[in-house]
Amino acid sequence: MRHLKLTIMYDGTNYVGWQLQPNGISVQEKLEAAWLEITGETIRITASGRTDAGVHARRQVCSLKTETDLPCERIAFALTATTPFDISVLKVEAAPEGFHAIRDATSKTYRYQIQFGPVLDVLNRHHRWFIPRKLDIGAMQKAAELLSGQHDFGSFQTKGSARLTTVRNVTQLDVEYFRESIFEYVDIVIAADGFLYNMVRNIVGTLVRIGLGKENPEWVLSVLKRKDRCAAGETAPAQGLFLERVEYDNLSFAANNEAEGEAPVES
Amino acid sequence: MRHLKLTIMYDGTNYVGWQLQPNGISVQEKLEAAWLEITGETIRITASGRTDAGVHARRQVCSLKTETDLPCERIAFALTATTPFDISVLKVEAAPEGFHAIRDATSKTYRYQIQFGPVLDVLNRHHRWFIPRKLDIGAMQKAAELLSGQHDFGSFQTKGSARLTTVRNVTQLDVEYFRESIFEYVDIVIAADGFLYNMVRNIVGTLVRIGLGKENPEWVLSVLKRKDRCAAGETAPAQGLFLERVEYDNLSFAANNEAEGEAPVES
Repeated sequence: MRHLKLTIMYDGTNYVGWQLQPNGISVQEKLEAAWLEITGETIRITASGRTDAGVHARRQVCSLKTETDLPCERIAFALTATTPFDISVLKVEAAPEGFHAIRDATSKTYRYQIQFGPVLDVLNRHHRWFIPRKLDIGAMQKAAELLSGQHDFGSFQTKGSARLTTVRNVTQLDVEYFRESIFEYVDIVIAADGFLYNMVRNIVGTLVRIGLGKENPEWVLSVLKRKDRCAAGETAPAQGLFLERVEYDNLSFAANNEAEGEAPVES
Repeated sequence: MRHLKLTIMYDGTNYVGWQLQPNGISVQEKLEAAWLEITGETIRITASGRTDAGVHARRQVCSLKTETDLPCERIAFALTATTPFDISVLKVEAAPEGFHAIRDATSKTYRYQIQFGPVLDVLNRHHRWFIPRKLDIGAMQKAAELLSGQHDFGSFQTKGSARLTTVRNVTQLDVEYFRESIFEYVDIVIAADGFLYNMVRNIVGTLVRIGLGKENPEWVLSVLKRKDRCAAGETAPAQGLFLERVEYDNLSFAANNEAEGEAPVES
């Protein structure tokens, strides 16, 4: 059995999300169908986390077990050619035995993309949340600083997810402003050792509430204390959210077949 | 009668182009329908040039005559709100009497967007021509220099357009390379006093042929000499093309109603 790591990119606009669903087409379904077509194997492909309907990925990571002896590069090429135009397989690597994309992840980074101001930038409408108002970037940055670090993020978790703990360590939370001609944009980049369900979109909705002047930056401290989803801002819409990358600090991967069968290497 | 200048942006993906067509939905149709809904007037809206099916515009300019006395800013807002999500009206200005978006244009700028390399950047697939090969940017830049300036561009004109002359002055022809993570891009920016039918897409196809190493940069000189469409490269696909802006050097426009009725001002 070979253990492989796939790095994939997708535009989530036309999918019900990563995970197989009875009510629509998922990225997982397309990828597993392509795998079957290429290798004849029916396998399960596991992603580092299920992105929701409409959420995009620049570098999603998947793990799988296979008996195919196709070279890694050939697999990447064939999968990209066999999946629809909104899914690309960027890299296939040999992984240590037992590699599991969810369990082994040590850090994830998301980017949430917003455009704000009086007029919609139509060319980015599928990849940004449009807020037809002025945003106070300084206030959002202040609030982002207060949310950074290790906290109980229970207030930023959408119900339904049973977790042992709601404490997470947010290692990066940047509010990046930029302008292109008449259009103003803000990207919220957030990295953590793990995320609760809808945590990024709930943090973004909370920061936007502050950007709109409805609350002060310090309000986030009381939201954190409450540990109640109702305390925070609205859930930001899916189309602005991108899974940027997933880190596996303690593992190494090889871009060719040679590494196959080698013992896991600590980096 | 008020004469107005509209500056509009659209994503051309879902349109048969700017101009009214019996076989599909055009940007003009949507804009004229929105105008009727807002003002009750049935009018003709003229764009600086008809973009083809699938071509986009960052700053298309239109002219129209109206009897409405709605303020310019109110018109812009109402049109954006009434047209579909892939059309935005950026600005409405009072124009000198008789202003005509085609006839009065002194210069136009287009940007053609390409992504090249082994893997498709799925997030930009609607807005770039994907070329799954390596491109020699230096060779394309050399050829672009040779094409700059005043020439007879007859070889770059798709048949069917009757023009008095096929001589045009290309005042800018830049081949801009950039890279983002594993993806490589090239933008071709071209400005001229006027364009022949499909001229930008034919120049781009010709430059790409050189970038692929099928011809030397100097080949463009013999293409120019032939004055025959068959001499040049293929027509680049529509989805990479953006009308960037249109200049009206000898006219001035006013962003409010006050200028209305004033004599045309030379700038």
